[in-house]
Amino acid sequence: MRYLLELLGVAVFAVSGVLADGRKGLDLLGAVVIAVVTAIGGGTLRDVLLDRHPIFWIANVTYLWVILAATLVTLGYVRFRVASRRALLVADALGLAFFTIGGVQVAQQAGHSDPIALLMGAITGVAGGVLRDVLTAQIPLVLRPGRLYATAAIVGGAVYLLSAGAGAPKDAAALAGMAAIVALRLAAILWGLELPVVHLPEDEAG
Amino acid sequence: MRYLLELLGVAVFAVSGVLADGRKGLDLLGAVVIAVVTAIGGGTLRDVLLDRHPIFWIANVTYLWVILAATLVTLGYVRFRVASRRALLVADALGLAFFTIGGVQVAQQAGHSDPIALLMGAITGVAGGVLRDVLTAQIPLVLRPGRLYATAAIVGGAVYLLSAGAGAPKDAAALAGMAAIVALRLAAILWGLELPVVHLPEDEAG
Amino acid sequence: MRYLLELLGVAVFAVSGVLADGRKGLDLLGAVVIAVVTAIGGGTLRDVLLDRHPIFWIANVTYLWVILAATLVTLGYVRFRVASRRALLVADALGLAFFTIGGVQVAQQAGHSDPIALLMGAITGVAGGVLRDVLTAQIPLVLRPGRLYATAAIVGGAVYLLSAGAGAPKDAAALAGMAAIVALRLAAILWGLELPVVHLPEDEAG
Repeated sequence: MRYLLELLGVAVFAVSGVLADGRKGLDLLGAVVIAVVTAIGGGTLRDVLLDRHPIFWIANVTYLWVILAATLVTLGYVRFRVASRRALLVADALGLAFFTIGGVQVAQQAGHSDPIALLMGAITGVAGGVLRDVLTAQIPLVLRPGRLYATAAIVGGAVYLLSAGAGAPKDAAALAGMAAIVALRLAAILWGLELPVVHLPEDEAG
Repeated sequence: MRYLLELLGVAVFAVSGVLADGRKGLDLLGAVVIAVVTAIGGGTLRDVLLDRHPIFWIANVTYLWVILAATLVTLGYVRFRVASRRALLVADALGLAFFTIGGVQVAQQAGHSDPIALLMGAITGVAGGVLRDVLTAQIPLVLRPGRLYATAAIVGGAVYLLSAGAGAPKDAAALAGMAAIVALRLAAILWGLELPVVHLPEDEAG
Repeated sequence: MRYLLELLGVAVFAVSGVLADGRKGLDLLGAVVIAVVTAIGGGTLRDVLLDRHPIFWIANVTYLWVILAATLVTLGYVRFRVASRRALLVADALGLAFFTIGGVQVAQQAGHSDPIALLMGAITGVAGGVLRDVLTAQIPLVLRPGRLYATAAIVGGAVYLLSAGAGAPKDAAALAGMAAIVALRLAAILWGLELPVVHLPEDEAG
């Protein structure tokens, strides 16, 4: 069950990576590369930082095949009709939810404290998209006034940690955390919620 | 004492990251992310390359709290007045000095040779700023005619290694190296010193 | 013999990194940094992902000296005459060929399956150039309609794996794979071969 969700998360993020490519005029292989990086970037960074080897997609190559299949299906599909943007956003929110809570659990199982687990959850959820944006030479969406993308990951991770810490069954806590992420993200898109923007005077320190 | 200096270095780099954000219209969480990446990026890269686990901020979460506090204080402060650019540059030079020498020492303690230790020192000192610039889609300051930022790190690291190699007490050598970094960096800012710029004919090899 | 080829590959990629710098007005140290990152980036990423420590250039500092020498010679040379673009492209194709096949072999020796070995070969071959482009704030060449750069790496790696799997002697298989990479890459440059470009409707999923 969890493994299936995980594969689904990888596939959804691959689709999101492919669709983001459309703006850039990449070639076919470039599109696949971006899809792969988007889908496995967050979990890879988490595994490297936590020294978990072999990295999840090296330990189980199925992830890579799922990404490849999702990418090719997407590329074929969008030749015929525009993907429903709404469906994509819902799927992407689900991917964020599963990756984040999965990342928190992985860090907890490795014996890390709650703040580190929360951070690793957020990294797992958002780093793939950050890498996608860096590779296409854009300021990562997650850093811009972005309708609570990373915020949703952090809030949902905290919901999971707090409810599990309060004695809730682990699965129930995970569901609560994932629901919080999806709800917050979709609400933010629906009503255009944003965190305040930082405006500072020009400076070239560094 | 060294631990306090280290926390100070992290805080100073976090402030530098936040102030760099001002130009980009990031949201509040984006500003925190950039501050964290700037402050821990160099040490994290060093630890991953040297296979030192747990990574320093996973081993000791205090670093993250200090960064968060420094970021929030900075964000609150700059609403009321412009930070003194001069104070920031001095603090940043101190951060560079401490991170670089600390990075050299870490690599030495892990049994690495002087050239590797020097490189790790420079990576520790400058990689956080490089990541900050990559994430905000700019060519890293440290690669541009930059008033001897990386140069100061390399020269100071060499001063430390040479004086320690010549038999100087380790603390004295560290102070000499740090002084060299701060002096060279501030002199370069004051007098606009730069390395020669490379101009080559256009080419698209790759 | 293999070690010499490896050093040659590093040197060639360093030269390619320096020449790419010419467009950006970096300073002298920035040019050296880009050359180093281009030359060792792919192998470093491979070693970190496969948990091979010490990383190759930490285990053997000769790589770094070769890069430094190649960079300085290149910088001196281009002051006097424009480098032959044709010679550079051939050398770059050779570097790609050796790095890719070497990366495949490293992953195989560590006991990984063929798909992972192929992926690691491609990462070893192209990631250095990707880092070079990210650091100079460009969309990586390898993702753009790029005359089969990454494609050549994947095809050549597959040629090596298939012929070694079919019982060919390892050295012969390696030569066949490297020849395939150089031939495909140079043919693509000569005749302007490209993979189809992906054009999708605008979307801001993420």
